[in-house]
Amino acid sequence: MKETNSTQQPTAFRDRADVVVNHPFFTAAVMVLILINAIIVGLETYPAILQKYHTLLGIADRILLWLFTIEIVLRLIVAKPTLSYFKDPWNLFDFTIVSAGHLFAGASFVTVLRILRVLRLLRTISIIPSLRRVVNALLLTIPALGNIMLLLGLIFYIFAVVGTMLFSKLEPELFGTLHDTLLTLFQLVTLDSWSSGVMRPMLEQAPWAWIYFITFILVGSFVIINLFIGVIVSNVEKANEAERAQLFEKEDVIDVKVTSVNHELTALRNEVRELKALLVKINTNHTRKD
Amino acid sequence: MKETNSTQQPTAFRDRADVVVNHPFFTAAVMVLILINAIIVGLETYPAILQKYHTLLGIADRILLWLFTIEIVLRLIVAKPTLSYFKDPWNLFDFTIVSAGHLFAGASFVTVLRILRVLRLLRTISIIPSLRRVVNALLLTIPALGNIMLLLGLIFYIFAVVGTMLFSKLEPELFGTLHDTLLTLFQLVTLDSWSSGVMRPMLEQAPWAWIYFITFILVGSFVIINLFIGVIVSNVEKANEAERAQLFEKEDVIDVKVTSVNHELTALRNEVRELKALLVKINTNHTRKD
Amino acid sequence: MKETNSTQQPTAFRDRADVVVNHPFFTAAVMVLILINAIIVGLETYPAILQKYHTLLGIADRILLWLFTIEIVLRLIVAKPTLSYFKDPWNLFDFTIVSAGHLFAGASFVTVLRILRVLRLLRTISIIPSLRRVVNALLLTIPALGNIMLLLGLIFYIFAVVGTMLFSKLEPELFGTLHDTLLTLFQLVTLDSWSSGVMRPMLEQAPWAWIYFITFILVGSFVIINLFIGVIVSNVEKANEAERAQLFEKEDVIDVKVTSVNHELTALRNEVRELKALLVKINTNHTRKD
Amino acid sequence: MKETNSTQQPTAFRDRADVVVNHPFFTAAVMVLILINAIIVGLETYPAILQKYHTLLGIADRILLWLFTIEIVLRLIVAKPTLSYFKDPWNLFDFTIVSAGHLFAGASFVTVLRILRVLRLLRTISIIPSLRRVVNALLLTIPALGNIMLLLGLIFYIFAVVGTMLFSKLEPELFGTLHDTLLTLFQLVTLDSWSSGVMRPMLEQAPWAWIYFITFILVGSFVIINLFIGVIVSNVEKANEAERAQLFEKEDVIDVKVTSVNHELTALRNEVRELKALLVKINTNHTRKD
Repeated sequence: MKETNSTQQPTAFRDRADVVVNHPFFTAAVMVLILINAIIVGLETYPAILQKYHTLLGIADRILLWLFTIEIVLRLIVAKPTLSYFKDPWNLFDFTIVSAGHLFAGASFVTVLRILRVLRLLRTISIIPSLRRVVNALLLTIPALGNIMLLLGLIFYIFAVVGTMLFSKLEPELFGTLHDTLLTLFQLVTLDSWSSGVMRPMLEQAPWAWIYFITFILVGSFVIINLFIGVIVSNVEKANEAERAQLFEKEDVIDVKVTSVNHELTALRNEVRELKALLVKINTNHTRKD
Repeated sequence: MKETNSTQQPTAFRDRADVVVNHPFFTAAVMVLILINAIIVGLETYPAILQKYHTLLGIADRILLWLFTIEIVLRLIVAKPTLSYFKDPWNLFDFTIVSAGHLFAGASFVTVLRILRVLRLLRTISIIPSLRRVVNALLLTIPALGNIMLLLGLIFYIFAVVGTMLFSKLEPELFGTLHDTLLTLFQLVTLDSWSSGVMRPMLEQAPWAWIYFITFILVGSFVIINLFIGVIVSNVEKANEAERAQLFEKEDVIDVKVTSVNHELTALRNEVRELKALLVKINTNHTRKD
Repeated sequence: MKETNSTQQPTAFRDRADVVVNHPFFTAAVMVLILINAIIVGLETYPAILQKYHTLLGIADRILLWLFTIEIVLRLIVAKPTLSYFKDPWNLFDFTIVSAGHLFAGASFVTVLRILRVLRLLRTISIIPSLRRVVNALLLTIPALGNIMLLLGLIFYIFAVVGTMLFSKLEPELFGTLHDTLLTLFQLVTLDSWSSGVMRPMLEQAPWAWIYFITFILVGSFVIINLFIGVIVSNVEKANEAERAQLFEKEDVIDVKVTSVNHELTALRNEVRELKALLVKINTNHTRKD
Repeated sequence: MKETNSTQQPTAFRDRADVVVNHPFFTAAVMVLILINAIIVGLETYPAILQKYHTLLGIADRILLWLFTIEIVLRLIVAKPTLSYFKDPWNLFDFTIVSAGHLFAGASFVTVLRILRVLRLLRTISIIPSLRRVVNALLLTIPALGNIMLLLGLIFYIFAVVGTMLFSKLEPELFGTLHDTLLTLFQLVTLDSWSSGVMRPMLEQAPWAWIYFITFILVGSFVIINLFIGVIVSNVEKANEAERAQLFEKEDVIDVKVTSVNHELTALRNEVRELKALLVKINTNHTRKD
């Protein structure tokens, strides 16, 4: 109540910014900007259009960049404390992509600038909450696959070294160096022309080469399939967990109730025992009197 | 009872139509017509047969069209109210496909007419109820995939713009324009000749191109596989739900019974307490008397 | 007890046959015969060996055929009644494959005879019980897929007719006739060179052809994937069912026990009520006396 | 306490070895050695580097081999009894790979030696416990697939014999001998160029060949897909089992409690009955007195 003018003003401003940022139209407006960005970036791929409307597209892009900057500044103002904005990696991504646009603005690396403009489209993910959740869920499945990825890497490296050793002179284009072989192995594991394009041309000079290829495809596919199965199983499990938790809760409720029935019964039995004691006493009194 | 003749007659007619439409032979007859339609449409693909029996096939097709028209008119008459017929999208499909046959009858777009005739085969789905259920179930899995489809679209668009930017001059046939690149990306994601046909020919001029291709294939496959896994998981879940609901019901029954045991026990305890009070009273009376 | 000698003898023979057939060595011996059959059939594929040992292989094959015949006759004798042997489709298969060997023995269709000899290897399935169970389980998944197979057939036929209509002149080798197109569609659905080998060569003359191909691949894969998912889900369900049945049973036991608790309680309450009535009577007697 | 000096000393040494082996740094150090081994083995694939640093790489390799030997000797010392070390197949693998390095050290089979050096990288699996668990889990899924593997083998062999019989003269490169055909069938089952590269070139001379190919692909894929589904289902089942066991336990607890409620109730009823008997006695006494 006794705040100085200087602190009161930004608070009032922050409140107004808060109203703007949380308004449903705000997200929609940003989404429209991203859509315009997408159209511009798409049009730029046509050389004829790029040449004719070069300046127009450049101006539109500058305006978009500044609008995105204003959006992020508003979000920064609204966040309390300001730095909490950077806690969400998606916000950090937004900030980086937009500020990189300013950084490289004057530079002559046209390709870098254009790729930055394209990457801005990924902001769709950070803007639409449901999409954000889907992507976060996808990314969360990766760490669980750590060990199997390591195993896959090991298999790839071993087969790459052996493949380069065996075939580097026979087929230098495919197996010339370690990185060539790694690329070829990736092709093999996707099963693209593994036989027609890679193995068969080598069979004439090295008839035993099929052992290498069949082994790699069997081992590689087996591990990759198990990788997918791992994801499926862990997902089915997760889906079942929630409902099972409900079932467990219900069981707990029944358990607690049955336990309370048990306590109630013990109490009742004690009271009946007291009754009996009383009756025995009455009976003794009676018989004594007789 | 006092209806005028004019309204009574159509009702009687509708009743008779109702009997016809709901007769098991009706569906069988329509199925036979669709089968004949299928055979005609198949025969027409053989130029020799088409030339020789051109008029015969044309007449058969006209008769079929009118028989289908009668069928749909009968179904319209039977429906109460008449417009409720259009509530089912499959009925709407039937109506559109048949009436389009009449509309384009005189037109000279032979190909359109022939495709319409082929599309009539899809009426099998609307005629066989079990098939209808399967297709409806398949279509119902689509909206659940909305977000992941949007994500896939985003990935495709970003990679298409970048791909066109990088490779349009190198390989104009595959990456010349944005739509060429989108088609190439679809080919990449199906893993058809992605390496042997698309990437390898470009490696000589652009040795760094593998980064683009491997990234796209890894990201694209990862999202698509997760799309499938999503469908599998949601289906397993649905399948489990029904049985789980049964389990929950049984639990509820037990829960209710245990609760009633609890109430019964409390009531019993109260009665025992009353008994005790009575006995105490009797005992006091006794001892007082002594 | 008073059976004639004629019926007693075959019974004794049947009993001895029964001992032979059910002896663990019998199955092992038949398995060894099938293995020898497999080796012979494999050796025959090498022209050099076939020419050199032609008569030897022929004799070995004749002996094998007669040994298999004896085996099946023994099994027929053991079966009661004899015709019950044919109830199992695997037995029928065994019988057909062996008797066909005798039927075509003198014929000059060498290829048919050789294929029959190869098909005898399938007897492994009917001999090893665990393998028989696996194959029966696989075959049982097929009828459940009836509707989705029908749908797939419908989609294939519609696309085949449309494809032949549109592309028969453009690419007569792939889309010349309805059956050519069906074969091409099968290739498309397995994603083998669908783009590099089939679609791309046609794009120059028919730039709109991609609509047909992308639509077919999307629709076809979607249905086929759902077909697999259906099998997965129904299998997971089956696997869960057994354990769930156990859970249901346990719930039922608890349910019955809780119900009996309820009955017991009601009985108890009635007895307590009788007690109260007695006490009230005693109390009235007392107070009356006072 | 009265042990001789000679047995006491090794025990003290074993204890010290135990401390060393179980120290967290020990595993890390071995991991670093494996990493260095990986780098050496990778560098050796580049002919330029191999030629220049030939002696250096050789010395590094010798040192690594001796370090690995010391590591395994230490592990052997720590194990009680010493031979229990060989119970774990991974330890046996470690021992074999390292001792083979010594065995072939002087030999001139350079390729064998190099492959041995590469295989040492597999020790990563035996060193990292979590990776070991993943690989063991993967290997455990194999025996469960025994029957379906046998079935797949049977299908492959039958189709290989038939394929060689039918096509050996038509396409000697692909179907010349039984082992050529088996390789081609493996290519078919991975769907690599099965149509564009294998079937189509044969259709001109043998238009009926599609029956063989389509049949094999349908049967082969069907069995392989069922193989994968089997793994998925058995994994989902395993995942569910643990939680279900918990549920069963909880049910058991409730069951036991309800049973105890039942016993308690019976006891209570007996006591109430005794009360009644007492009261009846009191009542008779009273009425007798009156």
